[in-house]
Amino acid sequence: MKKFWTASLLLLATLALAACGKLSFNDTSTTSSGTKTESYQTTGTVNDALYQGVIKNGRYQISSARGLTIQQNTQGGNNFNVKSMETGLTNLAQKQFSTSKYVFQEGQLITTATAKSWLARKTDKNADGLNPEDNGQEDADKRAPMYLQSLVEQDFMTQDGSNLKLGGIAIALALNEYDYYQKVKYGATYTTTIDQTKLAEEGKQIAAKVVARLRKMDGVSADIPIIVGLYRNAARDSLVGGVFFAEATAASGDSLGSWTNIDQQNEVLPVIDNKKPINSTVATDFNSFTTQIENFFPTLAGVTAQTHYENGALTGMNITINTQFYGETEIESFTQYVGTTASKYLPSGAKIEITVQATQGIQAFLARESGAKDFTTHVFGSY
Amino acid sequence: MKKFWTASLLLLATLALAACGKLSFNDTSTTSSGTKTESYQTTGTVNDALYQGVIKNGRYQISSARGLTIQQNTQGGNNFNVKSMETGLTNLAQKQFSTSKYVFQEGQLITTATAKSWLARKTDKNADGLNPEDNGQEDADKRAPMYLQSLVEQDFMTQDGSNLKLGGIAIALALNEYDYYQKVKYGATYTTTIDQTKLAEEGKQIAAKVVARLRKMDGVSADIPIIVGLYRNAARDSLVGGVFFAEATAASGDSLGSWTNIDQQNEVLPVIDNKKPINSTVATDFNSFTTQIENFFPTLAGVTAQTHYENGALTGMNITINTQFYGETEIESFTQYVGTTASKYLPSGAKIEITVQATQGIQAFLARESGAKDFTTHVFGSY
Repeated sequence: MKKFWTASLLLLATLALAACGKLSFNDTSTTSSGTKTESYQTTGTVNDALYQGVIKNGRYQISSARGLTIQQNTQGGNNFNVKSMETGLTNLAQKQFSTSKYVFQEGQLITTATAKSWLARKTDKNADGLNPEDNGQEDADKRAPMYLQSLVEQDFMTQDGSNLKLGGIAIALALNEYDYYQKVKYGATYTTTIDQTKLAEEGKQIAAKVVARLRKMDGVSADIPIIVGLYRNAARDSLVGGVFFAEATAASGDSLGSWTNIDQQNEVLPVIDNKKPINSTVATDFNSFTTQIENFFPTLAGVTAQTHYENGALTGMNITINTQFYGETEIESFTQYVGTTASKYLPSGAKIEITVQATQGIQAFLARESGAKDFTTHVFGSY
Repeated sequence: MKKFWTASLLLLATLALAACGKLSFNDTSTTSSGTKTESYQTTGTVNDALYQGVIKNGRYQISSARGLTIQQNTQGGNNFNVKSMETGLTNLAQKQFSTSKYVFQEGQLITTATAKSWLARKTDKNADGLNPEDNGQEDADKRAPMYLQSLVEQDFMTQDGSNLKLGGIAIALALNEYDYYQKVKYGATYTTTIDQTKLAEEGKQIAAKVVARLRKMDGVSADIPIIVGLYRNAARDSLVGGVFFAEATAASGDSLGSWTNIDQQNEVLPVIDNKKPINSTVATDFNSFTTQIENFFPTLAGVTAQTHYENGALTGMNITINTQFYGETEIESFTQYVGTTASKYLPSGAKIEITVQATQGIQAFLARESGAKDFTTHVFGSY
């Protein structure tokens, strides 16, 4: 019923490291007694394109500031932003920190309290606030908007004898193109739209401050590279996340080096309200695909796609097909049909993922890697 | 972020066939005028292990009796039975009808009205009823139970010039080990438990009648093989479907040939109520895996598995891990960890599928084919 797949598996390269509590960047379980023996492991790897993750005392090291990011972001943004920012940051980091040499650890330097203070406005009581002081104005164009919505820290560890040590840091700063605010608590929501040039300017200034502060933290030596990516949140009703638009690296010290622009765009297909699509060929191809698919079954509830462009070219497409199928054989036939139709109509070259959903959950999944010709398929079965 | 996969794709082997309405097994759009030109296609194939499906006038041919099967089964059984019976029947059929020579079509011979009459009790008004006449008794041990709960028909087509013709039929008869009934409408539900020997006996008699009736239908020539599989429904609160326990083939004519026993067992792990597992090594392996996984994250909601045994040996395992993850990087690390842990603890040889679920839907997916050493992984991303 399923494809034969091939995969290379580096079997259980788990490092059972006995650490001595020296790693001060890990603030959750370091004891000051110096006698406790901690046990580090990594997740091992089944996929070379993914980092191994750090396991400490049998548990995965969750980022302490993570919950806050979410909380902040649900207020002002949407969950697509969170996912896409995290994935995007890991992608930026991979260019400098290879998955074979570095082990991934959720950010451990910036605590919840620190993140909370940084993300707030600067006030007399909160000198560390990275958002501007309130200027007392309430008008969308006159008030001082919140530029920085959330941040994500990712740590990249290298092996150091029997320990893991911090080898690199990646920081994403999520900036608001649309800053949503209330004039009265629980009141109506207003929006300050921030010009992209202004947003980049502010983001770069915030980035410089963040790097200087990180460099002063325990465990961050002067020569650990700090990558900073500036991320522009999508509007809160968007069905796709935002994009990174600039990055810089502080190879050592506080200097961030020069900024590199990142040209990314996301779009949801089909486009609505007669908007012009980013690429009309892609949009037309997608419509042809959709028409073919929708003819197949009377009970199809809809086909949508998230598309991702880099430097103007389509690099990825996540398609979701909502169905009301009943039968396993119906799903199998449909999966075959989707695969052949996708090969025929969808743009070649870009990475494509297609999920077939029903109310009971995912029914089938098809994927084609960037540059590959063939779709792999999986129909989710049940005994 | 994902594995590189290989897949063989038979590109769009769609047969654009112009039929003349001769195929009487297709009762939905055959016109009697003889002038209408119908267009047949097949789904094409992206996976050699799956059949191509028939598309007629751009639409997939749904089985007319399909809805009824579902309806009947939700009353007395559960949705796992439906899925597992359909998949199981296709698996039985594949042994005789190869996916390269035959095209799959949802059953078109048995109409809704026919299925309804067959599945009901035999009465003066319903001579075709395959379930016994009501004997007026209400006691679980004295009443005449409903043996036949539902049925599934699958048609296997071959190419015949520019047409498709019926090349084989597979029928699954879903029989009740537990027959649920009400003494009063909307009243309490009682259960008649049917002895497996008795159930097999009744099932075989029903099968003989079904084959004789099918053989008389238009379009079913004397030499078309009819496979019949006897399926035993799982109890309605089961988290896994039932199994096939016998099969026979009427190669030609009404004679069903000899019955072959099928030794299949399904089980949900972990076993509850101190029940003895089918295979204690498998159960222990699964528990070790679960313990490792549950340690990893504080927010793990549970790990369960459907297991499938054939001839006493574990052949498949569908594991579902319920999580409350937030972050994409957390899911990536977890996926790596699940993959390495599965390789270490789970039984080798059997086909294994692992889905990582959150309330938002599927987050990641891991699979290992039967006999393969390596897991393929997919983390569902978002732009």
